[in-house]
Amino acid sequence: MKIILLLPLFAMVSCSSPKFVEDNTEVGNTFKQAKEEFRNGLNGITYFGDKRPSDEIIDLGTKLFFETRLSQNGTVSCSRCHLPQLHFSDGLEKSRGTEDRQAPRNAQTVLNTAGQFLQHWIGDRESVEAQAIHSFTVKVPFALKDHAELREKLISANYSDLFKKAYHGLDIKKSDPKLVAEKTAFAIGAYERTLVGPARFDDFLAGNITVLDSKELRGLKKFMEFGCSSCHSGELVGGEMFQKFGVAHDYWKFTGSKNVDLGRFLLTKDENDKYYFKVPPLRNVIYTAPYFHDGSVNDLEEAIRIMGKVQLDLDLTKDDISDLKSFLGSLSTKGEYLEKLKVVPNLPHK
Amino acid sequence: MKIILLLPLFAMVSCSSPKFVEDNTEVGNTFKQAKEEFRNGLNGITYFGDKRPSDEIIDLGTKLFFETRLSQNGTVSCSRCHLPQLHFSDGLEKSRGTEDRQAPRNAQTVLNTAGQFLQHWIGDRESVEAQAIHSFTVKVPFALKDHAELREKLISANYSDLFKKAYHGLDIKKSDPKLVAEKTAFAIGAYERTLVGPARFDDFLAGNITVLDSKELRGLKKFMEFGCSSCHSGELVGGEMFQKFGVAHDYWKFTGSKNVDLGRFLLTKDENDKYYFKVPPLRNVIYTAPYFHDGSVNDLEEAIRIMGKVQLDLDLTKDDISDLKSFLGSLSTKGEYLEKLKVVPNLPHK
Repeated sequence: MKIILLLPLFAMVSCSSPKFVEDNTEVGNTFKQAKEEFRNGLNGITYFGDKRPSDEIIDLGTKLFFETRLSQNGTVSCSRCHLPQLHFSDGLEKSRGTEDRQAPRNAQTVLNTAGQFLQHWIGDRESVEAQAIHSFTVKVPFALKDHAELREKLISANYSDLFKKAYHGLDIKKSDPKLVAEKTAFAIGAYERTLVGPARFDDFLAGNITVLDSKELRGLKKFMEFGCSSCHSGELVGGEMFQKFGVAHDYWKFTGSKNVDLGRFLLTKDENDKYYFKVPPLRNVIYTAPYFHDGSVNDLEEAIRIMGKVQLDLDLTKDDISDLKSFLGSLSTKGEYLEKLKVVPNLPHK
Repeated sequence: MKIILLLPLFAMVSCSSPKFVEDNTEVGNTFKQAKEEFRNGLNGITYFGDKRPSDEIIDLGTKLFFETRLSQNGTVSCSRCHLPQLHFSDGLEKSRGTEDRQAPRNAQTVLNTAGQFLQHWIGDRESVEAQAIHSFTVKVPFALKDHAELREKLISANYSDLFKKAYHGLDIKKSDPKLVAEKTAFAIGAYERTLVGPARFDDFLAGNITVLDSKELRGLKKFMEFGCSSCHSGELVGGEMFQKFGVAHDYWKFTGSKNVDLGRFLLTKDENDKYYFKVPPLRNVIYTAPYFHDGSVNDLEEAIRIMGKVQLDLDLTKDDISDLKSFLGSLSTKGEYLEKLKVVPNLPHK
């Protein structure tokens, strides 16, 4: 609701208000540049394309996201690696799923995740739906044998009626397992697409420049001047391109990584993709330690220092790091949104 | 709030209202007998003894209950086995914790759990606080080496300030690990003591006899007549005594249990305690499958049939089972309470 209400306000500010267009003060210039780098932020953003799925589909997807009974031994749900209490991440270096198997990389928050150009650190999932459908039959998360087993689990966890309600009478007991898996993933994706969590920074981008204090503004300015925003760009402050981790120096010499991860190369086998990873969105970053694809760094200031060094060959000062961190703090989903997004559903029973 | 408000209402009904005392209709008699078996239900019940802990302690305990970062490999929280979305149980035959290790028995819901005479199926925990403090160093759940490791985990998960707020400036960095563990358990217990979830049956016990329909009333009557309530007694419809599972027949011949669990005997080594288990509270039972100490039975009707046979040597008819199940449905925490109890907290960060 609020998102929609902000639209006309934003339109007013960006199109009709001449205040910032003519404003050549430092704040005015920072605002103008920020609009170029991060566009409108999350103001007016929805992740539904032309059509929002029905409430029944979103409700089904919400339950499925929190459902453990679909996994091979009943211990894993989407929310096991994306815990609402940890801003939808899990606090682990690398996630652990069925039978305590370890995932290859760190779990990112699913807050705002649907807005990225691709999913996962190496971009091997095209969408939140693709991520969901793969998770069921991959060994670390749900570890099911096949889509037929998923269908069995859905039936025994009492989801038949909810599928009927969501999908015009679709009877999963009589449906092709692949179709059932697709409908399952679509519903989970529909729920994830609702996880849009605006921050104070979006109020700033809407023209309310007083919401950032002088330290945060200084951090924003440095973030753009140093070149952070050449990769961490767009509404999500990331999530719209791949980039080599280690432009200036090998990352593992600074992160203390236990293994060298070749990144997107593992998928494409293209030498040019070695050490390339998706640039992660920095929204909610202060709440989603540990950092990097392998969760090798716990402290945000240390992560900022490393990024300066290995990406930009900069030795950031303590003040720089402190300012940048302050700016990143303005990217956290506001409490009023977070409280609504953290609602835990009741799961179905007979 | 509501619980307190119900007190004067109940007092009125039970003491001054002559309606049911004089009412010798079937419903009146069922009501009177139910008051003997289940007392006031959850009307007016709190689990705080003389003094409710401060909001700061309860807030700390709420966070700790949902905190995964305290466990050995970061995957286990109290809420892993007591999921709000599954009425604070986990849907598993037997719970699984750190490194996917299996617990010896089924996890019971923690809704209303503090009201039981002892905790766990064999009564080896005296209180919710005793259960909590043991969990940290037992191998299945948190699997920590000792209280010192718990303290380290608390510090690294940024709990120092919250302990200071809750416990008059207590600095966990400088405190004895055992004391820190006790304060941790006290806070978790304080949170669990807030999980009181009244049901329609409590409205009935408060004198509002029309809230149970004729089938539920019939079920209640049979529940008392058949003798179920001789063990499943008191406010929680259970949780106030041990009883042999298999008074009339060996339970494992009916439950399909994979192993024979000797129950409380394992603790006391007293032959008289063989196959004795705590009588579980039946509140929220329709939402907390699978059933029995080993989760050996998935279907509630089947569980009712088995209880009739092995405890009472009764061959319950389909109608009996259906009526009993209807009554059990009236023991579910009402949505208005459940929604409040399912609120997920934000966990602390630096």
